[in-house]
This record gives sequence, C-alpha cells and structure tokens, in this order.
Amino acid sequence: MKEGSISKLYRHNLTLLTDLYQLTMANGYWQNSMYHHEAVFHLFYRKNPFKNGFAIAAGLEQVIDYLQNLRFDVDDIRYLANLKGTDNQALFEEGFLNFLQRFKFTCDVDAVPEGTIIFPHEPLIRIKGNLIQAQLVETALLTMINFQTLIATKSARIKAAAGDDIVMEFGLRRAQGIDGGLSASRAAYIGGCDSTSNVLAGKLFDIPVKGTHAHSWVMCFENELEAFSAYANAMPNNTTLLVDTYDTIEGVKYAVEIGTQLRQKGFDLAGIRLDSGDLATLSIEARKILDAAGFENSKIVASNDLDEYRIKTLKEKGAKITVWGVGTRLATAYDQPALGGVYKLGAIKSPTETEWNYRIKLSEQAIKVSNPGILQVHRYFDNHSAPIADVIFNEDTESNTDKLVTFDNEIVDLSSFKSKKLLRPIFRNGQLIYELPNIHAIRNRTIEQLKEFDRKTINEYKIGLENTLYKRKKILMNR
Amino acid sequence: MKEGSISKLYRHNLTLLTDLYQLTMANGYWQNSMYHHEAVFHLFYRKNPFKNGFAIAAGLEQVIDYLQNLRFDVDDIRYLANLKGTDNQALFEEGFLNFLQRFKFTCDVDAVPEGTIIFPHEPLIRIKGNLIQAQLVETALLTMINFQTLIATKSARIKAAAGDDIVMEFGLRRAQGIDGGLSASRAAYIGGCDSTSNVLAGKLFDIPVKGTHAHSWVMCFENELEAFSAYANAMPNNTTLLVDTYDTIEGVKYAVEIGTQLRQKGFDLAGIRLDSGDLATLSIEARKILDAAGFENSKIVASNDLDEYRIKTLKEKGAKITVWGVGTRLATAYDQPALGGVYKLGAIKSPTETEWNYRIKLSEQAIKVSNPGILQVHRYFDNHSAPIADVIFNEDTESNTDKLVTFDNEIVDLSSFKSKKLLRPIFRNGQLIYELPNIHAIRNRTIEQLKEFDRKTINEYKIGLENTLYKRKKILMNR
Repeated sequence: MKEGSISKLYRHNLTLLTDLYQLTMANGYWQNSMYHHEAVFHLFYRKNPFKNGFAIAAGLEQVIDYLQNLRFDVDDIRYLANLKGTDNQALFEEGFLNFLQRFKFTCDVDAVPEGTIIFPHEPLIRIKGNLIQAQLVETALLTMINFQTLIATKSARIKAAAGDDIVMEFGLRRAQGIDGGLSASRAAYIGGCDSTSNVLAGKLFDIPVKGTHAHSWVMCFENELEAFSAYANAMPNNTTLLVDTYDTIEGVKYAVEIGTQLRQKGFDLAGIRLDSGDLATLSIEARKILDAAGFENSKIVASNDLDEYRIKTLKEKGAKITVWGVGTRLATAYDQPALGGVYKLGAIKSPTETEWNYRIKLSEQAIKVSNPGILQVHRYFDNHSAPIADVIFNEDTESNTDKLVTFDNEIVDLSSFKSKKLLRPIFRNGQLIYELPNIHAIRNRTIEQLKEFDRKTINEYKIGLENTLYKRKKILMNR
Repeated sequence: MKEGSISKLYRHNLTLLTDLYQLTMANGYWQNSMYHHEAVFHLFYRKNPFKNGFAIAAGLEQVIDYLQNLRFDVDDIRYLANLKGTDNQALFEEGFLNFLQRFKFTCDVDAVPEGTIIFPHEPLIRIKGNLIQAQLVETALLTMINFQTLIATKSARIKAAAGDDIVMEFGLRRAQGIDGGLSASRAAYIGGCDSTSNVLAGKLFDIPVKGTHAHSWVMCFENELEAFSAYANAMPNNTTLLVDTYDTIEGVKYAVEIGTQLRQKGFDLAGIRLDSGDLATLSIEARKILDAAGFENSKIVASNDLDEYRIKTLKEKGAKITVWGVGTRLATAYDQPALGGVYKLGAIKSPTETEWNYRIKLSEQAIKVSNPGILQVHRYFDNHSAPIADVIFNEDTESNTDKLVTFDNEIVDLSSFKSKKLLRPIFRNGQLIYELPNIHAIRNRTIEQLKEFDRKTINEYKIGLENTLYKRKKILMNR
C-alpha cells in the first residue's frame, strides 16, 4: 500500500469519513440486489470562488491516498453494527456488514491534475464503476477537493496581488482544525505561496518552512535590544526581527544595531517584520532607516490580517514591503470559507444492460441542472499554443468536439484548433496508474498556467458543452 | 499513554503541528541558557464571534490528548536537522536537537471545562512552567481551541434559533479539510446540535449519527416511487425520504404511499426531507398532505444552506419544519470563519528569582493590551444561584476578588455573593490530573449554562478585572 501524506498522518483509514447516508444507500443498493450496477459520478463546482475568473484544482493527492486505503476495519464494522434505526433495532443487518468487510475499491478514476486552471461545471474527478463504491466515496472526495481547491485559488489571488514579492502562509493558529491547517498549507503552496510556518505541513508535504520569533520572545527579556541581540546570537542565519512589540521605529533602529553586529561576524540582517499599525507609513519609514544604515538588502516583512485586497491597497500607498505574511484570511478563505462543489450521477447501467443510461439532476435553476454522460473536457489552444476554449463532452459517444455551445448559448467552431484532454486516467479497476507529481511540480504547473491564462485570455475564454451533449441535455430536461 | 480521540485518529504525534518560530524561539532560549526559565501564558480571545453575547469553550479534550503525546520522534528530529538558514547552513545545531530528543512536557495546565460559557479576555487555558515548553505549544492550542470554540458557539446560536426542534449537523462535504469536518462535528454537538452525518466523528467521539439518502438514490431508479419503495423495503426503520428530486409535492404524495405500505409491515414513515425551493411554503403544503393522510407524526426535515438567520426567517413565515439539517454555514462558521484567539505571556521568572515578573503586551488599541499575572476567573452567583459577574484576577497574589472594575470602568462590590473558579487544574508537572467528562456530559453542561445565561443575564452581566489587577495593569502600561 502506498504511503501517501494521509497514510503517514492518520492511523485510522478514512473510509468512515463519510455521511451516514452513503452507507444507508449502500445498504439499500445491496438489499435491492443492485451490487453489480455501474455508475458514473462527476465532482464539479458551479461558481468560481471569490468572484475569481477560474479556480485551481487541488486535493487529488489526498483523494488518491484515501482511495488506496479504502477498507472497513473490524472496529469500523463493529461500530456500524451497533447503529440503530427508528425502532431501536439494528440499522444494518449482518449480510450487508459481511459485504462491507469484503469491500474493495475497483472503480476507474479520471481527474484533472492538481495545479490546473479549471472552470465551473467541468468535472474535476470522474468515478466510473460499481455503483455502491462510486457513491460511497462522495463525501470524502468533496471534503478534500472543495477545501484545497478553494485555498489554492485564494493563494493564487494573494500571490497575484503581491506581484513579484514573496508570500509566506502562516494561518495555522486560526485554521479550521488540525487538517484545516495542514491541507491549507499544502493548497496555499500549490496556489503559489512561497512557504509556510506550519512545520508538520513542511515535513509531510515537503513545503519550505519559515519563521523567526514572536512578541513573546521580546517580552521575555528586559528590553528589546537585549531580546534582538540574544536572538541574533542564537541564530545569526535566521534574523528577521519583529520590531513592533513596543515602538516600531525604535525597534527598527535596534534592528540596525544588531545588523551591524551581525556583519562583524560575517552574517547579515535578513530583515524586519511589522505586525501592527499603519503598515504603509511604517514600512516607508523603516526602509529609509535601513537604507541609510546600509541595509538595502534587508527585507521588510509585513503581517496582520492581510489578504489580496489589503496587499493591493498597501502597494497603492507605496508600502516598501516585499515579503507578505498571510494567515487567517488565506487559511480559512475568510471572505468565502467554502467552495460549493457537488458530486452528481451522470450515467447508470444494470448488469444486464450494455448501454449507459444518462442521468441529469433537475432543478428550477438552470445552472443547477447537471450534465449527463461520461464527461471529459477538451481544452483548445490557438496556433500560438494559448488556451482559448474548454469543451465539456461525453467521452462515451463523442470524439470530435469542435462544435461548442457556450454557457452563454454562443456557438463556436473550433475545428481549426488543437485540443488536449483535461482529465487524466488515475485508477483503472481500482489500481493506481497515475504517477503522482511532487508538490513543486504541481506548484510550477499552477505558475505556468497562470501565465497562460492572463486577464485577456480569461475575459475571452469560451466554456460550454459540446453540441451533441448540449442537445442530449435539452432532450433529457424536456422529459 | 492515554488513547484520546486524536491518538486514535493520528498516527503521527502532533508535536510538529506548530509554527516554525516556536522552534526557533526554543532554540534561542536554549542557546541563551534560558532552559530553566519559567513562564505563564494565557489563551484567550478578545471579541465574541458572530456578535454573540458570549462563546462556548470547546477543544480541551484534543488539547489534553496533544499535550500527553508531546515528543519529538526520530524522524521529526531528522526533519529539523535538515532545515537551513539564510546562509544555507543548518538552522538548528546538534546540541539543541539532542535537547529536543529528550523533551518532556512538565508544565501545569489549568483550563475552563468544555461547554462553559465564556467571555472576552478570560483565560480559557493557562500554561505555567518551563518557558520553552509553554511557548512551544502555543500554535496547536490555538488551532484546537479557536476552531472548536467558534463552532460550538455557532451551533448554540443555531440551536437557539431552532428552539425545541432537532438540529442535525451535516457539513462534512464542505468542511475545511478532514479534521475541519471531524472537529466541527464534535464542537457542533457540544454546542447543542443533536446529531451529525459524519460517521467517523460518530465513531471517534460517540456522537449520534443520522442520514437516509441523497438525490442520487432517486436518480438510480426509473422513477421516484420505485426509488422510495426500494429504500423503504431495505431500511423500514430509517425512512426519512428526500422528496425534491423532481417535483416536491408529487414527492410528498409518493412518500405517503410508501408510509401506508410501511404501516402494513408494522413500521412508519419517519419523515420527509425538503432540500430546495421555498421551504416555508413547501413545508406548510407537505404538512397538510401528511396530516390529511394520517401521518401527523412523520417529521418534516429541511436543509439547504441553513443557519440561525434563515431558520428564524422560516419560523416567522410559519414553516412546518421540526428538524433542521445544517451543513456548510455551521461547519465552516460561514459568516465568521475564524475566532481570533491569542496566547500571551503573563509572567516570567528566571531560576534565580523567587518572584514572578509580570508582563503585558502593549498596543495602541487598549483592548489589545494583555493582562499581567497568573490569571484565574471567579464567576459570581446571586442568592438564587444565578450567575451575575466574572472577575479576572491574579491567582498569584489575590484571593479576595470582591471588588470588580468592569471593562466599562464601573466598580462593582461583590462581597455579598459567592463565587466559583472557572479554570480547573488539568495537568500538574506534566501529569494529567483531570478526569475527562464524556461528550454527552459536556453537551449537557452547555445546555445547563445556556439556561442560566438567558438574555437578561447576559445584558446585565458584569465582566472585568479584580481591583488590584486593574491597578497593576495601569502601572505596567504607564511604564
């Protein structure tokens, strides 16, 4: 069994990390002898988070790890055996529990690689195979993909606001629980952040970790200069000094004194950190003091409830900050703390059938009607290899996807352009066949794709359904 | 070693679940021969979440589990040994890493029991003992307490809006990561929710789990009636049918048909669930249909982006809903996804000193100035045992706390009333001496306290500093 980051972290397999209704439905299918039915489910979201023009796929590595370890342990079965129904009798009978004990994941999984730019309604993950299995994994897949995709997207927005500056994530203390912190650190790095303060995330996911000291360090000494001096003596190769415990400008002057001492020992003042007050004015003042003393290379780090909006405002005010520490508002996606990803049935087939039955979920809101079939996405590129359109199509029946009906009902002929499939094969018959990229390669993918999808590309980008799929959906809706 | 819920879940001890700066500071203290200094830190928050009048303490059980398992494993040390400073040389030298390898938690810990109503500036956790140890645990304690306290408070608000109705939490799919979901389920139960959909949370934390079926169940059958019938046959003792996959009112009528069949078999229709549309109107209509058919006891469950505000509105509209399924907005505390809890130094002492040196963290904002000392809280009760005031005091010097200076600078004489200490001893010299209540007892504490703290009590409640502490703080601020 592969030792992924979840396996390293969790002692418990996460098979029970699911809504109870996945298990009652599994029981229902089993009781109704539907254990050989096959189904296709798609995981997608309907609306970009943060009014962004796109999202960045993340979380697949954890999904793979989870799926590889899917099994019901003896104590899981024992727990389920004790659950009661409304009549206070067992909810699950022994036959079903025996079935769970033999449970093995055998589906095909296709997914968009992490670090890919994605759009609403595009399947990020497609599960095809045994109905009970494909249904059971819904909740865990949503948890992992929804949150990491949300944070990777937030991170990319913050990194975009910071331009060429460094962004450090340090949201752990306000994150939503232990893994809320760990997977936020991972997704933030995928989205473009340069480092995290979270040491366990650094260890588990191979993300660069950064940090120096807190206000409490300064408060443990008689005065600030003594505190800085003690710190610089202990770690001359990690000297970003937090200067705002008492008076920020005084703090900067002490940092300069320490910097001079450091140089005598062959080191240098890495920088200073501002964590309160008017960061624009203070950074301009601090920059002057540092430059005047010959510390032009010492960086000014700022933190204090930052996000993309505040970074933008500070830059407009001429702040002399080149390293941004972003915590709560990144790690919790404060202005929109959840992505509304869903997991919908696209097709179903009984063992006696040879053809798939396509399915849609109806809704009064047209945007909430799901797409039928076994979906894949073609991304089209113009003759300069720039992306121009995404076409969602039914891979079961179509290969030519050149005729696109956009979600704005515009018809676009793409026949003169080349395309690539967005979803890659991940599992076949329950066996992993995908080689997981390392996290740095994933982050590089994000950075490369963000270069391809500039503002102009996003504004003109065409997204929608392949023509045959569009028509089939209309027919199913009318039924 | 005690097998708490974290230990059951995590294979990895969580010692590295910390900001890097805790470790660089530890290194700094060690390098400066301050390994025998003692310190007192307090974990508290400054502002009630959601404009609520109070918060509900939660997360202590996970903190205890974390502290009991605090140790640096060989591979943790190996990871830290490989971290580099700005000169690309090792950040930590061997002596310090050897020190970490021998690390053992020996502090005293006092804390407010989970399920207690708490107010801004009151210490929820107090750590007293070795400076390096007390500093190191900051981040993990904040992560665990901030999030669970936030969610327990949100849950209490939702439960209050629901009145005597049942509230089921099912936020896992949109939660912030795996533990974001698990600890949200735990805290939601502590705050008063009646059940969760999260099976692993149910197993790990002994929370009742509930669930029946999704839209996809219905979509797997030729029509809705067939789907309901198959479900009811499989689980006649768990029949809350989701009726809005196609047409809600038709769905209710099919549910009645199934209910009639269930009764013939000695079961009953547990209820129906509405998940879209105008929940007020649909529930009124559905109630009429159910009652007319003799299903007065079948419950109407509603879900779809609910929170305390929407529940209140629906009740005002006369909605006939008595079971509320609340997901995203509870599990992520959507309208305020982070509690800004902090962890501040209150006192410090070198090995040669016999008296504590009290410390405050200054700030331009008076509300951000921390309180000095070794803090405890007395909760005062009137002669009818109703709570009337909380007095924060320095346990090192004071025992008589009858003279209160409130945060509004009102002086209150409490000498004719009795008081109880809010913080209880949890660890002494690193040994757990607290008997952990089970989760149902914690939830009952919440419910009891919510009865004590009615709106009138909250509005008239007095909170502030004991007079001597108030004066000492002023003196330290003027210095």
